[in-house]
Amino acid sequence: MTSSFRRVALIGKYQPAGGRAQAGAQDETMEEIGAFLESQGCEVVVEQAPDSQPPQTRRAALTVEEIGRQCDLGLVVGGDGTMLGIGRQLACYGLPLIGINRGRLGFITDISLNDYRTVLTPMLAGEYEEDHRSLMQAKVMRDGAPVFHALAMNDVVVNRGATSGMVELRVTVGHHFVANHRADGIIVASPTGSTAYALSAGGPLMHPAVPGWVMVPIAPHSLSNRPILMPDADEVSIELVSGRDASANFDMQSLASLAIGDQVVVRRSDYRVRFLHPRGWSYFDTLRKKLHWNEGGS
Amino acid sequence: MTSSFRRVALIGKYQPAGGRAQAGAQDETMEEIGAFLESQGCEVVVEQAPDSQPPQTRRAALTVEEIGRQCDLGLVVGGDGTMLGIGRQLACYGLPLIGINRGRLGFITDISLNDYRTVLTPMLAGEYEEDHRSLMQAKVMRDGAPVFHALAMNDVVVNRGATSGMVELRVTVGHHFVANHRADGIIVASPTGSTAYALSAGGPLMHPAVPGWVMVPIAPHSLSNRPILMPDADEVSIELVSGRDASANFDMQSLASLAIGDQVVVRRSDYRVRFLHPRGWSYFDTLRKKLHWNEGGS
Amino acid sequence: MTSSFRRVALIGKYQPAGGRAQAGAQDETMEEIGAFLESQGCEVVVEQAPDSQPPQTRRAALTVEEIGRQCDLGLVVGGDGTMLGIGRQLACYGLPLIGINRGRLGFITDISLNDYRTVLTPMLAGEYEEDHRSLMQAKVMRDGAPVFHALAMNDVVVNRGATSGMVELRVTVGHHFVANHRADGIIVASPTGSTAYALSAGGPLMHPAVPGWVMVPIAPHSLSNRPILMPDADEVSIELVSGRDASANFDMQSLASLAIGDQVVVRRSDYRVRFLHPRGWSYFDTLRKKLHWNEGGS
Amino acid sequence: MTSSFRRVALIGKYQPAGGRAQAGAQDETMEEIGAFLESQGCEVVVEQAPDSQPPQTRRAALTVEEIGRQCDLGLVVGGDGTMLGIGRQLACYGLPLIGINRGRLGFITDISLNDYRTVLTPMLAGEYEEDHRSLMQAKVMRDGAPVFHALAMNDVVVNRGATSGMVELRVTVGHHFVANHRADGIIVASPTGSTAYALSAGGPLMHPAVPGWVMVPIAPHSLSNRPILMPDADEVSIELVSGRDASANFDMQSLASLAIGDQVVVRRSDYRVRFLHPRGWSYFDTLRKKLHWNEGGS
Repeated sequence: MTSSFRRVALIGKYQPAGGRAQAGAQDETMEEIGAFLESQGCEVVVEQAPDSQPPQTRRAALTVEEIGRQCDLGLVVGGDGTMLGIGRQLACYGLPLIGINRGRLGFITDISLNDYRTVLTPMLAGEYEEDHRSLMQAKVMRDGAPVFHALAMNDVVVNRGATSGMVELRVTVGHHFVANHRADGIIVASPTGSTAYALSAGGPLMHPAVPGWVMVPIAPHSLSNRPILMPDADEVSIELVSGRDASANFDMQSLASLAIGDQVVVRRSDYRVRFLHPRGWSYFDTLRKKLHWNEGGS
Repeated sequence: MTSSFRRVALIGKYQPAGGRAQAGAQDETMEEIGAFLESQGCEVVVEQAPDSQPPQTRRAALTVEEIGRQCDLGLVVGGDGTMLGIGRQLACYGLPLIGINRGRLGFITDISLNDYRTVLTPMLAGEYEEDHRSLMQAKVMRDGAPVFHALAMNDVVVNRGATSGMVELRVTVGHHFVANHRADGIIVASPTGSTAYALSAGGPLMHPAVPGWVMVPIAPHSLSNRPILMPDADEVSIELVSGRDASANFDMQSLASLAIGDQVVVRRSDYRVRFLHPRGWSYFDTLRKKLHWNEGGS
Repeated sequence: MTSSFRRVALIGKYQPAGGRAQAGAQDETMEEIGAFLESQGCEVVVEQAPDSQPPQTRRAALTVEEIGRQCDLGLVVGGDGTMLGIGRQLACYGLPLIGINRGRLGFITDISLNDYRTVLTPMLAGEYEEDHRSLMQAKVMRDGAPVFHALAMNDVVVNRGATSGMVELRVTVGHHFVANHRADGIIVASPTGSTAYALSAGGPLMHPAVPGWVMVPIAPHSLSNRPILMPDADEVSIELVSGRDASANFDMQSLASLAIGDQVVVRRSDYRVRFLHPRGWSYFDTLRKKLHWNEGGS
Repeated sequence: MTSSFRRVALIGKYQPAGGRAQAGAQDETMEEIGAFLESQGCEVVVEQAPDSQPPQTRRAALTVEEIGRQCDLGLVVGGDGTMLGIGRQLACYGLPLIGINRGRLGFITDISLNDYRTVLTPMLAGEYEEDHRSLMQAKVMRDGAPVFHALAMNDVVVNRGATSGMVELRVTVGHHFVANHRADGIIVASPTGSTAYALSAGGPLMHPAVPGWVMVPIAPHSLSNRPILMPDADEVSIELVSGRDASANFDMQSLASLAIGDQVVVRRSDYRVRFLHPRGWSYFDTLRKKLHWNEGGS
């Protein structure tokens, strides 16, 4: 049988059987998935993580950049966090990604380890749904010059210091003034991030096909300061007007300290992340499962 | 001076000076606005409402259909409700609309009676911003056949009878099953409607340029049943699974009683409503004013 | 063995084995529970529902009033609704109640049919926790005279007609003016009712030992119109200022149509409902189970 | 005329006319209020703040402790923050407090500088309403021993570090386990604090006569993790199960860093704060004004 994807990168944390990395120990799950991919006619390579031992495997190890340039598919084994991390890195190469979840199913890693063979076989043969996720390109501007850059798939969060009161943030969208908001902070979330921190802070759910961001205030002083949906075509700028020890974080991964007057500027990246799902996949099925709708219960 | 709009329909409820309609009484405000339009080089006609006396004016009275076919601009004098009503009727003709508010400024009637001359002069000369609003085309399906049709600019609401408990509603979007929701009801709102009933029920604000609907449950039984943003390209269907005396309403104007098994189906109309605003207009300015942001206060 | 409760009323809907009432058919579950109570030294009587056939049982059937006057305990078999109904009726007699749930555990019927023997044995011997629930006494005042009376354990709800817009309600608490609220309606809920409709409408959870009511607006027009906790010692009055077809309901059981100017007046009843729970019972355990806290999941 | 209050402490920040403290400069507003009090038959003393120059006034300066022991009334000139601060310090002496607001009226400083003479005259003569506010006594327990103590009138807040993810907090009330909550943090607020941070985080309003606390999760992971009202008779304990750089703060004034395993324990103080208000005062009037109810507007 021949896969539509000739060269596949197997991505994820290698977890040797003994639970901790040992010289020569193998991650049997990863080995099995690799063998399965080969049985489907794929050539399998693995990720060479920059700061770790090469995984104990006979397969070729490539850097993320090499994977992006040379592979046809990334098969990610892990949770939503792993998928977000690699998604950010690979977006610029247009490499499609499939997620297999080792634990409880996630919002974006929706294939179970139990039945990956059955589910992957038709997908490798070209039977899949594409699901494109927008990516945020963010920077911190200080005195007119960028001092920090980051990409985010979920959200860009500006928040107060832990031991200080509210921040005051001046928000503009597409160069239109929105408001000066006083709050614990503001979240700008993509549809992907709408089920993460933004949801906890009171934001709506967003189907990934909606070309917008949601701006969700965290514990806002004004009760009429509600989540706002805006087109993702416009640039959003959040300026720190007042507040000690404020910071910005990007997918809760990278972090920038903010000084008064700094602006966190978010715009849609030219790249999108390409997720592949089994035929018949629906975002609403995922929502229903993850949010326990219709399970009988309060 | 020559207006870009040759023939202008002056639309709104005529309110004679004495407060109630009298034979021969004129609405002086409307007369003044009409005279102003003529001074700008426009030909002015008025609306002949189907169920009322012709307004006491020397100007030609046209039906809505004639206005749609023969005019270049509708100048609406009234509140948001008047604008929504005429907007629904004129959308299919592509006629642009400008709104002058007689009372407190609205979300869409944003020009004050006090300074309409100053504001309208450049607009009539072609200096304006266009703001397109999507329109919902809704129908009620019973036993496979449509039994009710309506257009809505704000929202389509399915809700329980006043004296009965929750309804159970089966929701699908683009033929994908979403969930069976138990609640007082469900609101499907456009960006225009996001500041109306949907906001009271806990929905987010939506910039009019976002091509989506928000589905907001009213007092949902399940706490994880949160507002959902979805692309307006997909058809939404809400089926009444159980509940007595349920009904559907469209912009709170037209109303359909629902039987068990009825489906309320909402899709984006091919027509959009065209609002014109003064140069420099921003949706966020309207939000800020109407929601009292940044007024100092709790 | 001797129970602390000599005479016990076994209360609940008799459900004959065949699923529908047949001459001579018995409800085996009820029979078994009755026999168990007798084995614990209790005399068992059953409820003679006013509008139904006497249950097919050899035990004496008493009216609710006779139960209230002559029994020492009510053992209710059913769901929360059954318990609320009988609780309202028996409150004035001070009869303690224990609830056994036939289906999924409820907020107040917290003993499972599976292990009732183990749980009831110590309770009948006097080992239990008492949990007192306040009761609302409500009336509708028209032109200065009461035209409707009702008791409520959960909530008193004033709401708009199904096909009309918002109602305007003038609220006073202890003769202090609170506000004129425009909304779909207002819920005044007891702690018992805080997990019912009030929760769906955005109200907080209330421990039953808090001597207060929560007033929760339903889809309020003003975003600052938030749920308010108030002492249950004060009388609450809700006057219908405007709105068509408005009504008031009491535990969603009894219903009064409202005319403009009618006042729905709620005060704490002199009676309380006495629930008995197994030793070690905690309201928080019930909340945690019913709201699925700490189950791992979103 | 003779005041019911013989000796009155005039409390508040002295603001000399020139805007900054100068040798010999006087705060004319304070001087005028002092003179007015004397005209009503009171002896007036001022507060000697521990870390500042004595105010430039001919009146006797007393420490807070001396004020508590020797005075009959505290007249506080400032905002809600000033009132909270002095209220915490004076609660143990039972000294009643009246608040005059220099700027916009507050929730508890409800007398305007403009008409204080008219309002205070009957109050000093004994015509007032008493309004008692409960006070929280909090401590941080580490390895079984208290390592931090604080009083709070508004709230006790446990929250995550600014640059870390959620904390996990194990909550118990009256030794009953409530839940392990994952969130940005948890607020335990008194009725007084219910209009402060707790309101921004989604909590209900609480009339000061309700003998309870509200526990409000900040951006909780679980959507069913809603604000809970509980009796203030029970001790609340919040244990830090996981999370970096977490801290507890008390009225946002004093701050304790938390280590894993630390417990923040809150119980009702034996002391209450006594506020005096003009006759006819109602908490609801304050709510209505501060929350802009019934102002006509969205």
